[in-house]
Amino acid sequence: MNMDCPLPENEFEKILLAHGSGGSLTGKLIRDTFIKSFNNDLLAKEHDGAVFNLDGKKFAFTTDSFVVNPIFFPGGNIGELAVYGTVNDLAMCGAKPLYLSASFILEEGFDIETLQQIVNSMKIAADKCRVQIITGDTKVVEKGKGDKIFINTSGIGIIPDEVDLSPSNVKAGDKIILSGTIADHGIAVLSARENLAFNSEIKSDCAPLHELVEIMLKVSKNIHVLRDPTRGGLAASLNEIASKSDVGMLIHQDKIKINNNVKAACEILGLDPLYIANEGKLICFVAPEDSEELLIEMRKHPLAENSEIIGEVMNEYKGKVVLKTSIGTKRILDLHTVEQLPRIC
Amino acid sequence: MNMDCPLPENEFEKILLAHGSGGSLTGKLIRDTFIKSFNNDLLAKEHDGAVFNLDGKKFAFTTDSFVVNPIFFPGGNIGELAVYGTVNDLAMCGAKPLYLSASFILEEGFDIETLQQIVNSMKIAADKCRVQIITGDTKVVEKGKGDKIFINTSGIGIIPDEVDLSPSNVKAGDKIILSGTIADHGIAVLSARENLAFNSEIKSDCAPLHELVEIMLKVSKNIHVLRDPTRGGLAASLNEIASKSDVGMLIHQDKIKINNNVKAACEILGLDPLYIANEGKLICFVAPEDSEELLIEMRKHPLAENSEIIGEVMNEYKGKVVLKTSIGTKRILDLHTVEQLPRIC
Repeated sequence: MNMDCPLPENEFEKILLAHGSGGSLTGKLIRDTFIKSFNNDLLAKEHDGAVFNLDGKKFAFTTDSFVVNPIFFPGGNIGELAVYGTVNDLAMCGAKPLYLSASFILEEGFDIETLQQIVNSMKIAADKCRVQIITGDTKVVEKGKGDKIFINTSGIGIIPDEVDLSPSNVKAGDKIILSGTIADHGIAVLSARENLAFNSEIKSDCAPLHELVEIMLKVSKNIHVLRDPTRGGLAASLNEIASKSDVGMLIHQDKIKINNNVKAACEILGLDPLYIANEGKLICFVAPEDSEELLIEMRKHPLAENSEIIGEVMNEYKGKVVLKTSIGTKRILDLHTVEQLPRIC
Repeated sequence: MNMDCPLPENEFEKILLAHGSGGSLTGKLIRDTFIKSFNNDLLAKEHDGAVFNLDGKKFAFTTDSFVVNPIFFPGGNIGELAVYGTVNDLAMCGAKPLYLSASFILEEGFDIETLQQIVNSMKIAADKCRVQIITGDTKVVEKGKGDKIFINTSGIGIIPDEVDLSPSNVKAGDKIILSGTIADHGIAVLSARENLAFNSEIKSDCAPLHELVEIMLKVSKNIHVLRDPTRGGLAASLNEIASKSDVGMLIHQDKIKINNNVKAACEILGLDPLYIANEGKLICFVAPEDSEELLIEMRKHPLAENSEIIGEVMNEYKGKVVLKTSIGTKRILDLHTVEQLPRIC
């Protein structure tokens, strides 16, 4: 650390890495700076995407910039992530994804062959999701003013009339289903970045969830909200929904599945898997009467074989998430204020 | 220059600043890498935005990342530019702009107060255009891996049934109207970046064109294509249309208006204003019988008072733009391969 360079007098007047973590500082920045200024109902919903009506049809519109480092990691690369990430945000709105845009900020000196490889995998990913990338943009910044490649994708999808997903629909008694193991993506990226060697390779779970969502919405008309626990992990997503829905949640830690190698890596690195990003998992809030059938159907899908009911919604602890630990104690599952893993997506 | 670091063996295997210039290298990258891989008809049109049909309605969808340096310049800032740029791309498709997304890549250490100022001016700009910013994203990269702030905006607009703008509609005989002076934006940004002092301040022309376009489309049903000559300037936009429409163009240099201070700055700096970016101007290809009336109506709008017919479409010189200079000679107006002004938008 360069001791000539003191911390700013008030560190919160400067952007910190933690402002991009998906934790409490991200939330504060979004609320205090963006939502307050842009000031409209659609943005204020803080959904994974915005839902708007046009000529009696419901559309979803979403955007994400990807700055993951390294750009290739076990299980994926920045291009696939950019396609699946936006497809998943559309799917979490209950939308059938239709069209994507792709905008590139390239650093001077970046390999064109590597760019081609990334673009090719975006095409394969888009085909897999049956979406088309129909508009784009390219900017180049001087060497040292960017980092290889940043990709923004925005997406448009159409939402069936009968689908209405929103944190405000969540009710006490709802069951909370998690579609599989957690923390695979974050730990895969971290191990690639830090050149960590574990006994077995940890792969990102990076995958498109639109097909799974389509099936789920057919099985139950009582799904109240869907969310993919990306940045900030399961803890951040649950907290966001709790704060927007004015209910509480009880989560059973022993129901949350974690791959053994991921668990071991988290222990070695001192990281809490509940806060680590996923890129191919979803959480679903569903009316209790539909939860068992939905769980059975979800488990038939290759991306959700490890689905589990991990908790339920309560009238108590409004706005909070309570974790019942494996040893039976309860604790509040808070949002992190510090950055665990920067540039994970 | 660090002599330990030789140029790559084949410089064209690496991304150069010129790949972001809007000139011939940008075109090559877009065609060889993006369009070839993503491979669909909508993208291949290379319009300012993509036009797609859904339930019998026509929509425009567009994206742009903004990396302008400096982020504040005479006449605007990166936030206003990000709103107007995407609104203008929608307008060039003949669309009424409806909704925007805004995605931020912030460098660690960036001033939150400055961010707030930029966000506020985005809100004012959006209100002026009657669009809403309804979805967003924020990422943070480590100090030295970005440059203060990059903003992506994507936009959705709706196109009236009767509007059909496309380079393929351009016909020999069409008149080419330019809505005002050129090169103001590029020179304003450059003078702010390089701390150049001219006799009078040169201001960016950064402005939203959707209202002007709405009026124009009411005046004439025979507008064939619209384009805003941003990166790469008037020369790049004319060449793009020429190459996509399989016609030739004759442009009369003495009809192209340039502010005196901009002209002087270009002379001092050795820059050709035909290649310098504009952010509040458009070119319009219109059937000759409607051109005079359209010109009169355009001149009534404050953003197009200096409109002029600058040339016409010909069957000769297919795919090329010919400039008739002020002294009466003719020359091909090519695309630049080198970067005149990096990070102008």
